[in-house]
Amino acid sequence: MSTRYLEDFEVGQTFHSARITVDADQIKRFAAEFDPQPFHLDERAAANSIFRGLVASGWHTTAITMKLLVEGELTPAGGIVGVGADEIRWPRPVRPGDELRVECEVIDVRASKSRPEQGVVRMKVTTLNQQNEVVQTFMPTLIVPRRPV
Amino acid sequence: MSTRYLEDFEVGQTFHSARITVDADQIKRFAAEFDPQPFHLDERAAANSIFRGLVASGWHTTAITMKLLVEGELTPAGGIVGVGADEIRWPRPVRPGDELRVECEVIDVRASKSRPEQGVVRMKVTTLNQQNEVVQTFMPTLIVPRRPV
Repeated sequence: MSTRYLEDFEVGQTFHSARITVDADQIKRFAAEFDPQPFHLDERAAANSIFRGLVASGWHTTAITMKLLVEGELTPAGGIVGVGADEIRWPRPVRPGDELRVECEVIDVRASKSRPEQGVVRMKVTTLNQQNEVVQTFMPTLIVPRRPV
Repeated sequence: MSTRYLEDFEVGQTFHSARITVDADQIKRFAAEFDPQPFHLDERAAANSIFRGLVASGWHTTAITMKLLVEGELTPAGGIVGVGADEIRWPRPVRPGDELRVECEVIDVRASKSRPEQGVVRMKVTTLNQQNEVVQTFMPTLIVPRRPV
């Protein structure tokens, strides 16, 4: 996979990832460290919650998505460096045994006026489960260097 | 700390958290699992990166923020359940030794028209370091049950 500079990105390009299966132990371990709520920690408590069963923290889904992005086809020069992300949505929970993959699409490419050596690439990142159901979407803004002259 | 129903939230209320210190080992461990890029994994490689030193993954900052929220003053009935989050920004990186805390403010409270038993509370969540510099902001939308009648 080649390193991509700002000039190599175009609106409409898409990038894919490998797949990661999420199990109950991973869900509980992430939750114990970062989101210790009953519906992420314990099957019995989760059964009585709004989720009707154990679900991953949304931030666990985001973290797994980042892993899939870093190891996937998207390979900007200098790494995947985000200044922010908009419109994170979790339309459907991630449950034990779900197999996740990521699709991302370039939605904007802009040179920086103040920093001529770089620009920003805006993407739409969609995380899907094994049924091709969307479990998360968001739009990160990445800093990407221009090709050195 | 009392459990809060939708009726107990008002625009302008603020909630605070404890503090968590982030060390280099935690930064590298999170990165190895979820964001394996050189500037999150290795001091020497990080010194030559855009960050000029080891920094935490933005998603690590988000995860620590969630931990601080869950263990802080914000105690909605049914837990902290987000349908999404808008405008995540990382204006300044988190570095080893930083001590993080969270402030959150209610910016909107709405009853649901379709689901009379619940509503949504929108917050602005700000994560600060030991110098009171902002390292992250975002605006989650939480589902909160109405008080049972």
